[in-house]
Amino acid sequence: MVEQELLYEGKAKRIYSTDNPEIVRVKYKNSATAFNGEKKAEIAGKGRLNNEITSLLFSKLMDSGIDTHFVEKTSELEQLVKRVTIVPLEVVVRNIVAGSLSKRMGLDEGVVLAKPIVEFYYKRDDLGDPIVNEDHIASLELAKPEELQTIKEIALRVNNILVDHFNECNVRLVDFKLEFGKLNDGSILLADEISPDTCRLWDKETNAKFDKDVFRRDLGNLTDGYEEILKRLGGLSCSK
Amino acid sequence: MVEQELLYEGKAKRIYSTDNPEIVRVKYKNSATAFNGEKKAEIAGKGRLNNEITSLLFSKLMDSGIDTHFVEKTSELEQLVKRVTIVPLEVVVRNIVAGSLSKRMGLDEGVVLAKPIVEFYYKRDDLGDPIVNEDHIASLELAKPEELQTIKEIALRVNNILVDHFNECNVRLVDFKLEFGKLNDGSILLADEISPDTCRLWDKETNAKFDKDVFRRDLGNLTDGYEEILKRLGGLSCSK
Repeated sequence: MVEQELLYEGKAKRIYSTDNPEIVRVKYKNSATAFNGEKKAEIAGKGRLNNEITSLLFSKLMDSGIDTHFVEKTSELEQLVKRVTIVPLEVVVRNIVAGSLSKRMGLDEGVVLAKPIVEFYYKRDDLGDPIVNEDHIASLELAKPEELQTIKEIALRVNNILVDHFNECNVRLVDFKLEFGKLNDGSILLADEISPDTCRLWDKETNAKFDKDVFRRDLGNLTDGYEEILKRLGGLSCSK
Repeated sequence: MVEQELLYEGKAKRIYSTDNPEIVRVKYKNSATAFNGEKKAEIAGKGRLNNEITSLLFSKLMDSGIDTHFVEKTSELEQLVKRVTIVPLEVVVRNIVAGSLSKRMGLDEGVVLAKPIVEFYYKRDDLGDPIVNEDHIASLELAKPEELQTIKEIALRVNNILVDHFNECNVRLVDFKLEFGKLNDGSILLADEISPDTCRLWDKETNAKFDKDVFRRDLGNLTDGYEEILKRLGGLSCSK
């Protein structure tokens, strides 16, 4: 057996090698960070909740025909995924105005957009992840134009599937961030996580927040919202 | 004769009505501003130079087949232009890394781009003119998708013409900002000005700056560079 090596440590996850060179193990952390790492905390249970929710959502997306890196959840904190080269873009899809869109564009939070907005951010913590357009992405060779087109199409398909799925759970999918990876053959897969860390999720009736804004804005106990999302998605919640 | 009315006052120009409802008079001011109006000065001669340079460059572009609002220069400080509704976008074309592109993306100033980058900024002083993508522009109804496509195509044609023209004058066109207007029939015209206030212009041999960065960065006497550009473009310079 090949010893498992820490390949990468991010703010919310560690990635380890496995015996299979095409598969890596993701272990979720309990760390919460916001504002490009300026605000930090350890929150018991967050890693488990994000692992569970991501596993449920990636399974749902794969059932709906989306190619993803996800293989299987193997423990409370861990999942196996295909080894990919991450495209250095954060792909944000927005259905309702919130967060930076509201501040940058002078729009009221909560306004429903006539059509989803897709934004690309260059994954560079040292630069504060600047927003980029298709010319910047081509110029910096972050993705080829045809890859970017594929990424945008997949992001909008993912949005349609998740909006409907959350709606059935009485949750509004306000906005979310995706990351994509490339296999050696050049194919593009949905990667990373989809969880209340990376989505804005509001209760359909009350607009109560079930996502990381609770941490960003000190609105209460973060994991209560995450537990509620897991419960509504039909997953096994430990605290209930 | 209809009395002339001040229709609009911007940071660098005033716009007056004329007897002809389809024509307005532009009067250039000597005001210099930078950093969204935080830095200000009155600089004698700047209005005349920008009027002269803009008139020369718009004439050149029209000779090369670009539709513009320009009619004629009527005095040192004034020109007549077609009355248009300004599209609320600043369209920036970049050939060489400088200014905000350098800061935002962590690129060295002076790097020549393989292909021009086109950027759109939402004209909103109160928001600091945020950069926007095509989805934001559609969502805010700043321009229709087909209008935006036309604007981008014209901007790149203007770039090709001006890069060659300045090159013949031993000047590098680093980047520049354009604005566009719409006539009542919906057609899109190049509008506003093209001058060292709205372009970065570097000497081809020494990279000496002939543009508003001299004011932004306190590099010397602003109008010396503007006079030099006017001279190289073949215009009549008063100080020589």
